[in-house]
Amino acid sequence: MKKIYMDQAATSFPKAPGVIEAMVEFMTQVGTNINRGSYENAYETAGVVYETREQLCKLFDFGPIEDKAKNVIFTPNITYALNFIIKGYLKSGDHVLVSSMEHNALMRPLVQLQKDRGITFDRIPCTKEGELQVEVIEALIQKNTKAIIMTHGSNLCGTLMPIKEVGAIAHNHGIKFIVDSAQTAGTFPISMKDMHIDALAFTGHKGLLGPQGIGGFLITDEMADEMTPLITGGTGSISDTEETPTFLPDKFEAGTLNLPGIIGLHRSLKYLEEVGIDKIREKELKLTQQFIDGVSNIEGIRIIGKTTCKDRSSVVSLQTTNLDEAILAFRLDQEYQIMTRVGMHCAPNAHKTLGTFPEGTIRFSFGYSNTEEEVEYAIKAIEGICIQNQN
Amino acid sequence: MKKIYMDQAATSFPKAPGVIEAMVEFMTQVGTNINRGSYENAYETAGVVYETREQLCKLFDFGPIEDKAKNVIFTPNITYALNFIIKGYLKSGDHVLVSSMEHNALMRPLVQLQKDRGITFDRIPCTKEGELQVEVIEALIQKNTKAIIMTHGSNLCGTLMPIKEVGAIAHNHGIKFIVDSAQTAGTFPISMKDMHIDALAFTGHKGLLGPQGIGGFLITDEMADEMTPLITGGTGSISDTEETPTFLPDKFEAGTLNLPGIIGLHRSLKYLEEVGIDKIREKELKLTQQFIDGVSNIEGIRIIGKTTCKDRSSVVSLQTTNLDEAILAFRLDQEYQIMTRVGMHCAPNAHKTLGTFPEGTIRFSFGYSNTEEEVEYAIKAIEGICIQNQN
Repeated sequence: MKKIYMDQAATSFPKAPGVIEAMVEFMTQVGTNINRGSYENAYETAGVVYETREQLCKLFDFGPIEDKAKNVIFTPNITYALNFIIKGYLKSGDHVLVSSMEHNALMRPLVQLQKDRGITFDRIPCTKEGELQVEVIEALIQKNTKAIIMTHGSNLCGTLMPIKEVGAIAHNHGIKFIVDSAQTAGTFPISMKDMHIDALAFTGHKGLLGPQGIGGFLITDEMADEMTPLITGGTGSISDTEETPTFLPDKFEAGTLNLPGIIGLHRSLKYLEEVGIDKIREKELKLTQQFIDGVSNIEGIRIIGKTTCKDRSSVVSLQTTNLDEAILAFRLDQEYQIMTRVGMHCAPNAHKTLGTFPEGTIRFSFGYSNTEEEVEYAIKAIEGICIQNQN
Repeated sequence: MKKIYMDQAATSFPKAPGVIEAMVEFMTQVGTNINRGSYENAYETAGVVYETREQLCKLFDFGPIEDKAKNVIFTPNITYALNFIIKGYLKSGDHVLVSSMEHNALMRPLVQLQKDRGITFDRIPCTKEGELQVEVIEALIQKNTKAIIMTHGSNLCGTLMPIKEVGAIAHNHGIKFIVDSAQTAGTFPISMKDMHIDALAFTGHKGLLGPQGIGGFLITDEMADEMTPLITGGTGSISDTEETPTFLPDKFEAGTLNLPGIIGLHRSLKYLEEVGIDKIREKELKLTQQFIDGVSNIEGIRIIGKTTCKDRSSVVSLQTTNLDEAILAFRLDQEYQIMTRVGMHCAPNAHKTLGTFPEGTIRFSFGYSNTEEEVEYAIKAIEGICIQNQN
């Protein structure tokens, strides 16, 4: 029987049409390295890499592409991107603000710097539905507050953060604004310009519908200038010196890039342009609302977070009142071939905020490729298991 | 006309048979994430990832696989691996020794730490043929010397370092031994046990014949315990805390792994086991000797480094006495479809050692897939361009 994939928030599946084919073509026909070879192939590949930077500038409305493409930095994934930004920018004694809903990709680097570098942070509180209490932010800003670092959408319950409002506050106070777009890039409009985002971290393999192994960040010149590169090494530029280049993107891009990954991302970004992210979002949220409506009447199921689709992504967490969530997930996989995710979702403080710590939740997340039939099937499956459990 | 690829030291091409197919199968059929999903697919993928760790333990003779597989850490490439090791291990006031032949993947992190953390280093001198002056090492060891960090083979002229001897010296002095295997893994035998290697950095896309985007390092428990992880974030383990796990491999593996990359590497390592690295090395060195013999009689060509195949890899650098190396490379590509690499090869001090700074060299590097006919064709092509240039 066909597997039904409802773990899109972990990694999207299937990838955009043409992604794998583009990667295969590159690996079988070209396969070369850029900035390092003295042959035509290497230059052609460099062109596609540059075009991918341009696509990302456009997608995230970063300003004039001809100025900004070099400010797009590739990393292996968004965890690396957040580490590059956080550890590259914050210095001993700095203070930052985060939301109470953050993923460990953001929190673990911060907690590490708290110990190693003496940085401090405060969490902007959120409601039981994961909604940011924007009105509290200004009171939390201190003299040494250097940045607000925040996810755009919760990976646990899908609630979106009002990043435009937060960006305006950061801007007014002369504080940097750093956004984690793991759960929203490719589905929700993000304008770095309008939202006053100084650094935007993204990953290629979720909503951008590209392969695993590629992500990155977009960053302003001003912020990049103040940063120390976390990873240094050969760049194929100013190779007559053992000093790291100070220009972008080379300052942050050492070693051989994941070229098959970038080629795949290039194709998936083209697909997003063709389909349009509005269309993708509308479909995903329709499925989400269908799922929420369907499970809300099942006895023994509790929806965590919001029950509407206003300011949310296509991620839904549930708790089961008479059954271990892990057993529900296991039975959904074994008996119904439905793939979900259970536990802490690498976001312990988000669970504390929502009141689901330490039990955790079972998470369903929908993508553009999921169908109404699949959602209906999943609702029936959950219902079936819950009824059986009660008998 | 068919392109002739002689830039194998930058990235191998083509990849091992089956690599791309394995990646495609994973991306189209499985596509999931490990440590993060509650479904069978995710567990099966985790099994392949674990097997890849076992293959690497075996290839690098790291000791009992059941103990050591967890000590294999995946990173996006060897530059990241060297940064993880160097920046994770060295503390303010530490001193290290390197050879005078190192790549910027190793030197740029060190030079950065020299400024940022006050570490110091000395270079063990090498001869004009890139041979390490082992007898000098003990005199260079200081009280605060914490490690010897060294490439196994020069990426510029192919000269191998006597890492077994160096490892013994490090071991006798209680100093850590860190080896960069970028140019030798998959071609030359490396025994971490016998060579007293505490940390071995590798990349998947050169001699290991896997895809770009995957590399890593193998490290002893003792050394790993003393290290700070450079990148932290979600690991899918102890997710109820914002602290980073202290156990391996999770301590150093945050964020979504490049699973297509690991699947590809898994297949290429299997291929290496099937063919045997001795057979690969013999063929590569035969081609290398054929090339050296062929070009040594061409007027206007100077071979840089050794002219024999004793203790060397299949990398050959040349200088042209009457012609810019970049022009030779350009004409080889345009007129003969031969792909080479020209310049500094990210190793400025190696060029200083060999007396080729600041002009640089043109580099030819051969792989198992190259043929005697291709080498013969390249020799004739170089000769043709040199003769034309003289007329």
